Amino acid sequence: MPGSVDSTAEAGGSTAEELVAERRGRLHPAIARTREAVRSALSDLPAGTTALVACSGGTDSLALAAATAFEAPKLGLRAGAVVVDHGLQPDSARTAEIAAEQCRGVGLDPVQVRAVEVGREGGPEGAARTARYDALRAAADEFAADVVLLAHTRDDQAETVLLGLGRGSGARSLAGMAAVAGLLRRPFLEVPRATTAAACIAAGLRPWHDPHNDDPTYTRVRVRHEVLPVLEEALGPGVVEALARTAGLLRADADALDMLAADLAETAVRRTDGEVLCDVGMVADEPAALRTRVLRQAALEAGSRATDLNAGHVAAVDALITDWRGQRWIDLPQGIRAIRRGGFIIFGPDVTG
Amino acid sequence: MPGSVDSTAEAGGSTAEELVAERRGRLHPAIARTREAVRSALSDLPAGTTALVACSGGTDSLALAAATAFEAPKLGLRAGAVVVDHGLQPDSARTAEIAAEQCRGVGLDPVQVRAVEVGREGGPEGAARTARYDALRAAADEFAADVVLLAHTRDDQAETVLLGLGRGSGARSLAGMAAVAGLLRRPFLEVPRATTAAACIAAGLRPWHDPHNDDPTYTRVRVRHEVLPVLEEALGPGVVEALARTAGLLRADADALDMLAADLAETAVRRTDGEVLCDVGMVADEPAALRTRVLRQAALEAGSRATDLNAGHVAAVDALITDWRGQRWIDLPQGIRAIRRGGFIIFGPDVTG
Repeated sequence: MPGSVDSTAEAGGSTAEELVAERRGRLHPAIARTREAVRSALSDLPAGTTALVACSGGTDSLALAAATAFEAPKLGLRAGAVVVDHGLQPDSARTAEIAAEQCRGVGLDPVQVRAVEVGREGGPEGAARTARYDALRAAADEFAADVVLLAHTRDDQAETVLLGLGRGSGARSLAGMAAVAGLLRRPFLEVPRATTAAACIAAGLRPWHDPHNDDPTYTRVRVRHEVLPVLEEALGPGVVEALARTAGLLRADADALDMLAADLAETAVRRTDGEVLCDVGMVADEPAALRTRVLRQAALEAGSRATDLNAGHVAAVDALITDWRGQRWIDLPQGIRAIRRGGFIIFGPDVTG
Repeated sequence: MPGSVDSTAEAGGSTAEELVAERRGRLHPAIARTREAVRSALSDLPAGTTALVACSGGTDSLALAAATAFEAPKLGLRAGAVVVDHGLQPDSARTAEIAAEQCRGVGLDPVQVRAVEVGREGGPEGAARTARYDALRAAADEFAADVVLLAHTRDDQAETVLLGLGRGSGARSLAGMAAVAGLLRRPFLEVPRATTAAACIAAGLRPWHDPHNDDPTYTRVRVRHEVLPVLEEALGPGVVEALARTAGLLRADADALDMLAADLAETAVRRTDGEVLCDVGMVADEPAALRTRVLRQAALEAGSRATDLNAGHVAAVDALITDWRGQRWIDLPQGIRAIRRGGFIIFGPDVTG
């Protein structure tokens, strides 16, 4: 199926409140909401800063482009756009050019199309994401932009939380996407997808409908079209909002615990040549959430990889402290071992009893 | 539909491994797993302690009754059972008596049926739970039991996490059930439901099938039969295990943060007549996860109810610290207000600008 102008967005009805607002010549509430979100996300930037909107031409990023073009000048900012052409569909170059045209049309400048080559590492979604973020960083460099704006909505956030449920690796895997992460900002993280769609209609924009968004080979698409509706039916309306709120709360929790664990590791963990030592006496009485984070960090420093080291490994190492019965060493990924010797847990490649 | 002996459990097939084990006269792996779980959950109890199994006659609690009857004497413990008759079905007294008979049959003693009256507060599930836990506590009192064992499985834990997603109130709402909570212990929290079913078959026990377990008016039943299968299909197998693991990790996180926040409140919060004061300077530089917990606790102490005070209220109070622009007071549930005056956030019923 080729990409097409999004007809579902055009078919969307207006609420009575919105119709009244339009008839009185007032700003459409959906446009007001998107602009307010952008204003709040950019308000701390010094005048003269350049912000780039990452725009696919789809509903969310087109609404973001329009709102940013309106708000940035009022804050003294320069606002451009970058459209990444992933080259995954036959007409992708034309689609990207149409998106760029629309960005110029709403007043963004500069606007650039960047063609990328999507590799294979990390599966189809992961590889496209890697190529896209690389291109966004390169564009930011080229235009000396301090900020790149992404159009992820509250619905995207809810989907990200559900995707994290399958990993089962705790708060961090359910913390969704950050509102601010280095160069990147996500002004729409609390804005529903229905609002960006309504904003496009009200502004007369014609978003492109990415056929990938309906392709059930993508896990995210299955979560969107199969899991979320069933979850909403079972738990009642408001699930999307609850999931997005959960992400924010768990992100704050994970940030706090990571920081406190880093403070604790500062005194409890030391490095010798090839080995990492954790002082049992300094961590034994700390809460499990801090102790296991310190142990995990020590294992990573010794050479285990974050993608391979799971909660089960860390729990086994923790038992050398909380349930010490003279166990032998614990085998960790990448040939690392953890062993208790005297008052220390020692992590390293050649550690034996 | 009246209650019936569970035919699905009887129809369950054995794996090759299980058949080999049986043929060799070895212990069935499912029975071994349930016994191991009980042994590990009870191993810290001093000899002479009495443990009561809460048994409905269903698959999980019958497997728990059998495993406890086997393990308790080896640990020097006394093990009985209490069967709660909720009186919600016409033949509930008979069902309870059959469950009690089976408990006596596996060797538990004392075994008692306690009839309760289920009220209306908290909805059908909540009211039944309240009545049940009251009866379990009363039974523990009567038999001087220090421990009551509940048969919740890993699948129950996964369902509890999904039910918590709809609340969206952070780590605590996703932390599932505790393995140990006061009098209560849950030995099967990491044991799959399929294992308890297999253990019953292997032991020749005939579990009662509660028709409520198929009634889709219960949210938990919809989560079990509608949400979990769809989630598993979208995210792949292992979702139940991942959800249960998530519960354990988030419980540890929430415990740690609650404890650290209580430490912080110790110095930063003080009470005067009718008002609760939080010292802004003492919390401003703390991580958001701690600061918001301290503010929430202060609002509860001032008189807001935990069930009414949501994350949005707390975020608004937090903005009096992190985004102070001379706002007026914040209205909180139960007529409590929070206002910033000088270096303090003041919580109380009569606080005004």
